[in-house]
Amino acid sequence: MEYQNFDVEVAEGCARVTLIGPGCPEMGHLCDEFTDLMLRLQEDNAVRLILIADGDHAFDFHHNLDSLAQSVGQAEGFEVLSADEEIARRIVTLIAELPKPVVAATRGDIRNMGFGFFLAADVRLATTEATFTTPDLAGGLLPGWGLTHTLPRLIGGSRALELLWSGRTLNAAEAARLGLIDRVIPPEHFEEVIDAFIAKLGVQQAGVLDATAMLSFDWEGQQQCWASRETAAGLKAVSEGLVPRFDVPTTVQED
Amino acid sequence: MEYQNFDVEVAEGCARVTLIGPGCPEMGHLCDEFTDLMLRLQEDNAVRLILIADGDHAFDFHHNLDSLAQSVGQAEGFEVLSADEEIARRIVTLIAELPKPVVAATRGDIRNMGFGFFLAADVRLATTEATFTTPDLAGGLLPGWGLTHTLPRLIGGSRALELLWSGRTLNAAEAARLGLIDRVIPPEHFEEVIDAFIAKLGVQQAGVLDATAMLSFDWEGQQQCWASRETAAGLKAVSEGLVPRFDVPTTVQED
Amino acid sequence: MEYQNFDVEVAEGCARVTLIGPGCPEMGHLCDEFTDLMLRLQEDNAVRLILIADGDHAFDFHHNLDSLAQSVGQAEGFEVLSADEEIARRIVTLIAELPKPVVAATRGDIRNMGFGFFLAADVRLATTEATFTTPDLAGGLLPGWGLTHTLPRLIGGSRALELLWSGRTLNAAEAARLGLIDRVIPPEHFEEVIDAFIAKLGVQQAGVLDATAMLSFDWEGQQQCWASRETAAGLKAVSEGLVPRFDVPTTVQED
Repeated sequence: MEYQNFDVEVAEGCARVTLIGPGCPEMGHLCDEFTDLMLRLQEDNAVRLILIADGDHAFDFHHNLDSLAQSVGQAEGFEVLSADEEIARRIVTLIAELPKPVVAATRGDIRNMGFGFFLAADVRLATTEATFTTPDLAGGLLPGWGLTHTLPRLIGGSRALELLWSGRTLNAAEAARLGLIDRVIPPEHFEEVIDAFIAKLGVQQAGVLDATAMLSFDWEGQQQCWASRETAAGLKAVSEGLVPRFDVPTTVQED
Repeated sequence: MEYQNFDVEVAEGCARVTLIGPGCPEMGHLCDEFTDLMLRLQEDNAVRLILIADGDHAFDFHHNLDSLAQSVGQAEGFEVLSADEEIARRIVTLIAELPKPVVAATRGDIRNMGFGFFLAADVRLATTEATFTTPDLAGGLLPGWGLTHTLPRLIGGSRALELLWSGRTLNAAEAARLGLIDRVIPPEHFEEVIDAFIAKLGVQQAGVLDATAMLSFDWEGQQQCWASRETAAGLKAVSEGLVPRFDVPTTVQED
Repeated sequence: MEYQNFDVEVAEGCARVTLIGPGCPEMGHLCDEFTDLMLRLQEDNAVRLILIADGDHAFDFHHNLDSLAQSVGQAEGFEVLSADEEIARRIVTLIAELPKPVVAATRGDIRNMGFGFFLAADVRLATTEATFTTPDLAGGLLPGWGLTHTLPRLIGGSRALELLWSGRTLNAAEAARLGLIDRVIPPEHFEEVIDAFIAKLGVQQAGVLDATAMLSFDWEGQQQCWASRETAAGLKAVSEGLVPRFDVPTTVQED
């Protein structure tokens, strides 16, 4: 399937999704595409993890401010705004609840709604040149896209408030120090580090990935791993000092 | 109203409260004044946020140790101690539950009870020269002032224990790394950064500030913002590339 | 009592436990010894805190991979694996629930099961030369030893996932930045800093240590401290500018 807001490529267990199209997209359409895409990738046995990365724009969605400003105070305007926020909630919730690992990677300037999108991923990687800006409250609207939920969980309530209230831009080093990103990578090693991270996950047993993504441990899950052909091969390889490679189907089934 | 433990000045949406008077204050009196002051500022429409800063002493309240030591083992002594702790709880809870943002800023040495007071604010700023010391447990009393509540929430349980048990003094850089302060500022830029932070909040819509201070997002709150004159002006200004300035009444109503 | 997996020495309020024996121990035996040791130290009035430190190996327990690999897919194999995990849970829970402070200190390479053991302590100290590696998921088994519980609580869910999925090794500086360790110490000052930390806790009132270890504050606890001979002496000493020394029995009662 072709998408207008996303480009997708599946190889070696990883679906690479890049953000294309306008930074000020039609939100309903973006959400429909994203929902379709994620559900398709979740069902695809050739996909062990999903990488979402900068394409045409760097996690920098934004509202059409002119249109918002013109409709302000009108009931219809609020309907558009609340519909957009409902869409944001669906996207953020979809990412958070997806069993497969979702990794977000950026080398650009994260801001506006794209910040909420970026924070919803399981793990976040960035180059040393990336920057991070919380949405400006200057317009007099509450910060949406789940930010009052995700931001304090990642960096604590006080730091979240300081960022939301100051609206200041963080560089990658400070973002990593606070916990907004999990790893800072020099630009010249970006592809290489991401490839290694992905390669490791791409050959990993699906059951192990999904369970760790939920940070859960249960006997049933462990027993399923134990009973699987993949774990048998994995333990044998590890005991022989080899790097295990779990079977990954190589063809994508289009629905 | 004149206070013996606090100096207050309201300008451009911000109430600047500075700590004056003795570092070993009469606690009941301190609490009465603080409660009166906070409730008054909460009701004052000219106040969008509250800044609490060093004055005569730098968040360094302490018990009268001689008096404590003399009354130790006596039932009356414990009554004084527990009354003081009850006061601390009221102050800490009052700060935490106040809808308006409370920002604490220091350039001095934070310690003893003042540490609990400082940690209760929503956001904490400090100069590179500030230091932070958890109360010494050497006296054989449990750490009060809500520290066993606030400290682990800000920096995690393990780090909280390491600080409480070692009693060591942190410099500002380490305090920021751990999450005890949200921003470290060189002394020569302290006033300037605080002024900018305050100026931004001082012109912000009250509804947005109060909701973000509680890290909450709800449709009703968003709708109230949307319907307000301030947000209409704010969105218009932002869409025109201007910095919005919300109306702030300039006179303080004394009760 | 003599242990095969632990060496124990009690002096000045502190029980120093060092890890001896094989890094691939018989888990049931390790657990029996550890449970016996901890319960004995908990009951010993001469022990105010427990320090667990590197001995023959640096918190680097591991499974017998050959044996695991051979029994894979067999029901008996899973019984061994799940029995080991049940043992891990008992050890981790025992450390976490022990009222007395448990401090872990390392100068080595923490990895495999030893990582879960290390994370269970109340406070963690390490030299600048120590390294930290989450268990490799390559074998296709879920990470046990409570890691899906302790790791996100210490460093947050995203960072926990990045470590579990990448399997990369952290140096001490990054481990401290993330919150996996509470203090990094140059090797040449390691003994000295640990001795000072221990000395401070070793003379502390037991009631204060136990309550802070649980990060709890309650009036009854405070009243018990207040009424105690130790606090009376402590407050008197502090008010006179002296360092208090609480009574610590010097003989260990063997059961």
